Amino acid sequence: MNITKTEKSRIEEVDFNNLTFGSVFTDHMFFCDYKNGAWQEPQIVPYGPISIDPSAKVFHYGQAVFEGMKAFKDDAGSTWLFRPEENWERINKSSERLAMPAFPKEFFFKGLETLLNLDNDWIKAGDGNALYIRPFVIATQPGVSASPSDQYRFMIICAPAQAYYSGEVSVLFAEKYSRAADGGVGFAKAAGNYASQFYPTNLAKERGYQQIVWTDANSHEYLEEAGTMNVFFRIGDTLLTAPTSDRILDGVTRKSIIQLAKDAGITVDVRPVKVSEIVAASKSGELKEIFGAGTAAVIVPFKSFGHQEKDYELPAQEDSYAARFKKALKDIQYNRATDPHGWRYEVK
Amino acid sequence: MNITKTEKSRIEEVDFNNLTFGSVFTDHMFFCDYKNGAWQEPQIVPYGPISIDPSAKVFHYGQAVFEGMKAFKDDAGSTWLFRPEENWERINKSSERLAMPAFPKEFFFKGLETLLNLDNDWIKAGDGNALYIRPFVIATQPGVSASPSDQYRFMIICAPAQAYYSGEVSVLFAEKYSRAADGGVGFAKAAGNYASQFYPTNLAKERGYQQIVWTDANSHEYLEEAGTMNVFFRIGDTLLTAPTSDRILDGVTRKSIIQLAKDAGITVDVRPVKVSEIVAASKSGELKEIFGAGTAAVIVPFKSFGHQEKDYELPAQEDSYAARFKKALKDIQYNRATDPHGWRYEVK
Repeated sequence: MNITKTEKSRIEEVDFNNLTFGSVFTDHMFFCDYKNGAWQEPQIVPYGPISIDPSAKVFHYGQAVFEGMKAFKDDAGSTWLFRPEENWERINKSSERLAMPAFPKEFFFKGLETLLNLDNDWIKAGDGNALYIRPFVIATQPGVSASPSDQYRFMIICAPAQAYYSGEVSVLFAEKYSRAADGGVGFAKAAGNYASQFYPTNLAKERGYQQIVWTDANSHEYLEEAGTMNVFFRIGDTLLTAPTSDRILDGVTRKSIIQLAKDAGITVDVRPVKVSEIVAASKSGELKEIFGAGTAAVIVPFKSFGHQEKDYELPAQEDSYAARFKKALKDIQYNRATDPHGWRYEVK
Repeated sequence: MNITKTEKSRIEEVDFNNLTFGSVFTDHMFFCDYKNGAWQEPQIVPYGPISIDPSAKVFHYGQAVFEGMKAFKDDAGSTWLFRPEENWERINKSSERLAMPAFPKEFFFKGLETLLNLDNDWIKAGDGNALYIRPFVIATQPGVSASPSDQYRFMIICAPAQAYYSGEVSVLFAEKYSRAADGGVGFAKAAGNYASQFYPTNLAKERGYQQIVWTDANSHEYLEEAGTMNVFFRIGDTLLTAPTSDRILDGVTRKSIIQLAKDAGITVDVRPVKVSEIVAASKSGELKEIFGAGTAAVIVPFKSFGHQEKDYELPAQEDSYAARFKKALKDIQYNRATDPHGWRYEVK
C-alpha cells in the first residue's frame, strides 16, 4: 500500500462538540483503482478532491454502491469496529447486483485498519462519539454508452460523529411513492436508491413528517423499511419486522437487534407486516413502539406515524425496547459489556 | 458566459470513420454551477477532468439526471437539433423527481448553441453521422448525510457518432428482474435507473440476448420499455406501444414515431401491451415487427424475442414500419424533408 501522509493535520480546526453529521472528514482517505480486470495497488492519501472525467459512468448511470460503518473508542483508548465483515460482504453483494467487481477482503480490512490507525486521533472516546466510516465504489470509466464500466475506484472516507440526535420523529407510511421494485435493487446499498427518496421525503416533510416508512410498491399494504433504516414494531411484548427481500436492506443493526431480542427471550416475528394490523394495534392500544434501526442513528424511536391523512401517536414507554436495545448495542460497541456473539472487532 | 477556448484542438487525432459510441468527446464542454440557491455564471472550457470532493452526493446517493440529444449537419453545412425543447423539459422533470433544481431554458439553449458553434467542425455531414449531446446534472455538495444536495453542476458534453450499428438484436422479455416500481423514478432519466439494469442485462447476454424488454414489476405480464429505448409492436398493420407512466420514459423518438404513424394513417394503439398477446400474435403469424426507439439508436428492429425459455423469431418484413419511420425521422433530422410539425431547430 502506498501511503502519503498529510503535511498538516486539520484536526485542530474541528470542534468535536459541534459536528454536523457526515460533513467534516479526517486527514486521510483510502482508495484503490480497478482497471484491466484487477484491483491495483491501494493507496492512502490526504483527504481532498479527486479528478474524474465528466463522462465517467458514475455520473450518468449511477453505477455506485456504498457502506456505512462506525469505529468506537473505549475508555482505555482501544478502537473497535462492529461486525465489519458484514459490511465487506454486503458491499460486494451490492456491487454484484450493479455489475461491479467484488473488493478483496484483505484489501478492505488492510485499508480500513491502516486508515483508522493513521487518523486515530479523530476517534473520540465518550458515549455517542464515533467515527462514521464510508466505504464506497464508483464507476470511473469515461464514456457515455449505457453499459457497465471497466474501471472503478473503491474509497474509504471517514467523518467524526457525535450521538445522532434526530429530535422527535414522526413518520409517514408511503401510499403513492415507492422505494423499490420486486426484482430491483432495493436490497443493495446502491446510490440511486437514495436520490429517488428525496422528493417524496420532501413532500412528507412539508406535511410535518421527518421520514417515510416505505411500503411495497404493488399494494402499499406492507411496511418495508425507512430508506436509511430498517423498522421494528412492538405489539404487546412481541417484536415485528419485515423479512429481508430483494426490496429490503439486510441491515447489520437490524440483525443485531433480532439476536439481542432473542437472547433476552423476546418473541421476534420476522414476517410481512401489514399497515392495517399496525393501525388496528394502535387503535386497540396494543402497539407499544415503532423504531428505526441503522448504523448512523443506531435506534430511533418514532413518536407517531401518519397513514391516510390520520396521525397515530405512539405511547410513552417505560420499559422501551428501543432504549433497551440501544443501550445493549452501544455497550457492546464501546467495549463496556461482554460480547457473546463476537461482534466486536479490535483495530490494532 | 465565460468561454475559455482550447489551445489546441484534438480533432485531427480523431478517426471519424471508426468511432466507438460515446467514447471520444469534442474540444469543449459547458458547465454551470448551482449554489446559494441559484445557478451561477455559465462557462465553456476545454473538455477535461473535473475536480470533485469524494463525499459529493452524486457518488453516494445517485442524485444525477441526464438527457440524450443529437445534432445533425445537412449537406449545405447547417446544423440542426431535433425537438430540443423536449429534452430541456424532460431534464427538468427528471430533476424535479430527484429533488434537484430546474435549469433555466435560456441557459440551456445558450449553452448548447454556443458549444455547438464552437465545436461545429466535430459535426460531420453524411447519413448516420451526428453529434451525440449529453446534458447532465450532478449533485456536488460534499457530505454524506442522505439528503438532497444544495450544490449542483449542470454540464453538456458532446461525442461525435456514426450510424448506430447494433447488429441483429434478440431481446429477452423480463420475468424476474425489474427496472422500475410504481411510484418510483422509472419515467425519469435518473442515473440509478441504468446501473440497475446492467446485471440482469449481463445475464441475458450470457443467454444470447442483446437487450431486455422490461415488464411490469408486479406481474411481469405487461411489456414496458427496453431501458434505453421505448418499444413498439406491429400486429397486422396496427402499431402498439405502452402508455407512458411513472415507470416508462416519455421518449422523444417514441412520441415522434406515434405522430409519424398517425400522419401516415397507421392505427396506433397506445395501451398496456400484454406479453401473452405478443406471444399469441407471434404464434398466429400476426406479429410483424418489434422495434426499439431512442435517440442514440433511432430505431432498432428486433430479430427475435425470448420468453419463458422459448425464442420467437420475427419475420423479415418487406414494408417494414421500422425502416419507414427511421427513414422519415432521419429525413427530417438531416433537413432532407419538409418538417410539418416544426421538430427541426436550426443552430445559428
